[in-house]
Amino acid sequence: MENCVFCMPELDDEQRIIFENESCYFVQRDQRILKGSGLIVPKSHKVTVFDLSPKEWLDTQAMLSEVKEWLDDTFHPDGYNIGYNCYQTGGQHIFHAHMHVIPRFEDEPHAGKGIRHWLKQEENKRHI
Amino acid sequence: MENCVFCMPELDDEQRIIFENESCYFVQRDQRILKGSGLIVPKSHKVTVFDLSPKEWLDTQAMLSEVKEWLDDTFHPDGYNIGYNCYQTGGQHIFHAHMHVIPRFEDEPHAGKGIRHWLKQEENKRHI
Repeated sequence: MENCVFCMPELDDEQRIIFENESCYFVQRDQRILKGSGLIVPKSHKVTVFDLSPKEWLDTQAMLSEVKEWLDDTFHPDGYNIGYNCYQTGGQHIFHAHMHVIPRFEDEPHAGKGIRHWLKQEENKRHI
Repeated sequence: MENCVFCMPELDDEQRIIFENESCYFVQRDQRILKGSGLIVPKSHKVTVFDLSPKEWLDTQAMLSEVKEWLDDTFHPDGYNIGYNCYQTGGQHIFHAHMHVIPRFEDEPHAGKGIRHWLKQEENKRHI
């Protein structure tokens, strides 16, 4: 799609392609706080994870395995979060599906807190 | 594995199996804050997402599609977060892989914040 930063990641100065397979890229963007973090992105324009074909989903798994091995060797993390934000309410900002791969470290202030931690607190209760 | 609540989810009073396919369950547990949220769990004992076979990964995708349709019809969410916590530092509490499926709503206090929101803040910077 025109003007989509994930349709042509090789043309964007703010990100770098690290790996590539038949249907996906692994790209890294800003890592000021989250060292080693990156995104597995289908080459075709799909809006959310729900739109991936079985082939894209399998290629995502193969790439995740390759990426984890490389991140383990390079950054030596103690844990990971792996996941997708879907639609604006879910925190998606770029509307081309991307799997976040987030290495986590024991010496992070938020070590031990997972992707649901803040969402499941009383402060996020809906008033309905 | 003995004493693993996801190896025999049908025996656990605190969770309910909603869907099942050849290699996965979709179970719901506590939903006091996160209405509709649940977990896609492989039937075999695998510790993290990195340990899933291609067959389990494809069955997870098929179940995600079924689950989304049901959640859309039942809870009418405005977005989703989909993902895995891996190892203790990543916020994993039960060491049998489980994909969190979290419906998100426009009227939540944290609407629009995704799975990286709190992790990427200055307050989570490592002192190294």
